[in-house]
Amino acid sequence: MLEGWNEGAAKSAIVDFVARTTKAGGPEYVPPAERIATFDNDGTLWCEQPVQVQVFFTRARVAELAAQDPSMRERQPFKAFLEGDQRALAALGKKGVMEIAFATHAGMTEDAFAELAGAWLASAKHPTLGHLFAECVYRPQVELLDYLRANGFKTFIVSGGGVDFMRAYAAKAYGIPPEQVIGSSVRTRFEMQDGRGELMKLAELDSFDDRDEKPANIGRHIGRRPILAFGNSDGDLAMLRYVKTGPGARLALLLHHDDAEREFAYDREFRLSPLAEALDKAQAYGITTVSMKRDWRTVFG
Amino acid sequence: MLEGWNEGAAKSAIVDFVARTTKAGGPEYVPPAERIATFDNDGTLWCEQPVQVQVFFTRARVAELAAQDPSMRERQPFKAFLEGDQRALAALGKKGVMEIAFATHAGMTEDAFAELAGAWLASAKHPTLGHLFAECVYRPQVELLDYLRANGFKTFIVSGGGVDFMRAYAAKAYGIPPEQVIGSSVRTRFEMQDGRGELMKLAELDSFDDRDEKPANIGRHIGRRPILAFGNSDGDLAMLRYVKTGPGARLALLLHHDDAEREFAYDREFRLSPLAEALDKAQAYGITTVSMKRDWRTVFG
Repeated sequence: MLEGWNEGAAKSAIVDFVARTTKAGGPEYVPPAERIATFDNDGTLWCEQPVQVQVFFTRARVAELAAQDPSMRERQPFKAFLEGDQRALAALGKKGVMEIAFATHAGMTEDAFAELAGAWLASAKHPTLGHLFAECVYRPQVELLDYLRANGFKTFIVSGGGVDFMRAYAAKAYGIPPEQVIGSSVRTRFEMQDGRGELMKLAELDSFDDRDEKPANIGRHIGRRPILAFGNSDGDLAMLRYVKTGPGARLALLLHHDDAEREFAYDREFRLSPLAEALDKAQAYGITTVSMKRDWRTVFG
Repeated sequence: MLEGWNEGAAKSAIVDFVARTTKAGGPEYVPPAERIATFDNDGTLWCEQPVQVQVFFTRARVAELAAQDPSMRERQPFKAFLEGDQRALAALGKKGVMEIAFATHAGMTEDAFAELAGAWLASAKHPTLGHLFAECVYRPQVELLDYLRANGFKTFIVSGGGVDFMRAYAAKAYGIPPEQVIGSSVRTRFEMQDGRGELMKLAELDSFDDRDEKPANIGRHIGRRPILAFGNSDGDLAMLRYVKTGPGARLALLLHHDDAEREFAYDREFRLSPLAEALDKAQAYGITTVSMKRDWRTVFG
C-alpha cells in the first residue's frame, strides 16, 4: 500500500502514526471507534486549479439557466460571472456570490440536485489536464484513505465545497459514503409533493464549512475529536489545530502544491483558497508538511 | 435474534422487510451502503416517562447551579422549573425553556459537557422503575438494532434530544457511535484555550430536531433517504413519511405505549410529546404500528 508515496519524512510519519495507534497494548493505542480521520477535499483529495471543480459546475449551470432566460446575461451578478469579470464579481461581494450559489444549488429537491450533479460529473472534463474532473483525484490520497480504512479508521471529508455536490461523487472517487461527507450547505424544507416527501433546497445558507466552522461542524456531525486531519490551505488550519492539540497521539498533515510539472505550483497567491499562515506556522504547530513534488511518486491515477 | 418480540404482524413485517431487502438478486434488494435505518430515541429506544431523561438531567444541573448561586431559586424561569410549577413555566413560553436549556447545556466546552453528562448518567436512577436511567432502554429495540446491523444496516438516532447528551450513552446503550447520533444542538465556537483547541457550546440554538426538522437533518447529516424509520410520536411523523414515501422497499414503524403494567400507557395526552395524528393516520400512510403490550415479550433488559 501507499505505492504512490515516496519514502521520506511524510510517509514515515503516516506509517509510524498508524502503527502506534493500532498496536494493541501499546502506550498510544486508540480503539477503532475513535480512529476518526478528516480530510479537506478541494486541493487535498482532488485538483482545485485553475478554480475549484464546483465553480466549473456552477458556470455550466448558469449557462444552462441563461439559455432558458437570456435576460440573465445582462443581470448582475450573473453577467460578471458568465463573462469571468473578476473585478466586477469582487465588487458584488459575498452577496453576489451567494446569489449565484443559490440560483444554481437551491430551488429544487435534494434528489433532483443529486441527479443534475451526477450527470454533469459523468462527462465534464478538466480544461488542461485532459481527464474527466471526476478523475482528477490524487492517487496517493486514495491510497492513504484505503490504508487508513484497512487499519480500522473511519474516513470523513470536511470541506468548504457544497455537501450535496461532493456526495454525488465521494463514494465512487474516494470510497467515502454520503453520511461521512461534511460540507457547506443550504437549509432545506421538508414538503410533500404528489404524495412523496421531498427536501427542498432553499436560498438560505446553513453552513459555510471553512476555517473555524470546520471544527464546529466536526462537533456537530461527528461528536468526537478526530485523531488525524489532512488539509492544504489556511481554511484548514482550525481543523488541523483542533485535531493536533487533542490528548494522545495525533497527526495533522498539510499538502503543499509545489509541483508545476505534474500538477500546479501555488500557495499564498491563490485567491480562492490561499496557503500562507498554515505554511508559516506548520512547524510551530506540529503539522507535517507534505510536498507534492518530493513526497508523491505519482499524482493522478 | 429478536427474542424480546412476540410472533405477530409487527415482527413479521420487520423480518420480512429485512429478508426482501437483503436477498441478493431479489427484486427489492438494497445494497448495504443504502441500508440506512433511523430511530427516534425518547419513547422509542428508552423510557420517556414521567418526563424525558434529559429533563431529569436538566433539573439536577439547575439544582447544582442554584447551590452555587442561590439567587437562581428566586429568578424565572429557574424558580418555576425547580418548583415544578408547570403553569408558570408554560407562561414563560419557549424563551423560558431555551433559557433553562442554555444555562445547563452551554457556556462550557463539548468535552466538559460530555464529562458532566457521563458522570450524571453513571448514577442517576429512574424515580419509579428502580433502574439507572441508562438501563431504562427497551430490550426488544436493542435486539432490533443488533439484528439490523447483523444484516448490513447502518443504524442512526434522529431525536429531539440534545445531541451531546445522547452521545454520552448511545454507544454503550445501543451500539450507536457519536457520528450516527443526530439531535437538537446549540451552535459552537472554536477557540484556543491554553494551547488546546476547544468547541465552546453557545447559548444559541442550532437545530431543534423535531417534526419537519428531522428529515431536514437527515438530509444534512446522512445525505441519503433511509429505508427504515422507527418513532413513537407526532414529532416523528415527517421522518416516517419521508422514509416511507421513497421508491422501493420501505418500512416505517410506530411504537404505541399501551402497556401500563410493564411500562406506561399514554399517547394523545402526553403534553411533552403527544401521539395523535400519527396514530390516526398510520394505516393510511402505510406505517406499521407496534403495540408494546401485544408485540413485546419483554420491555426492559
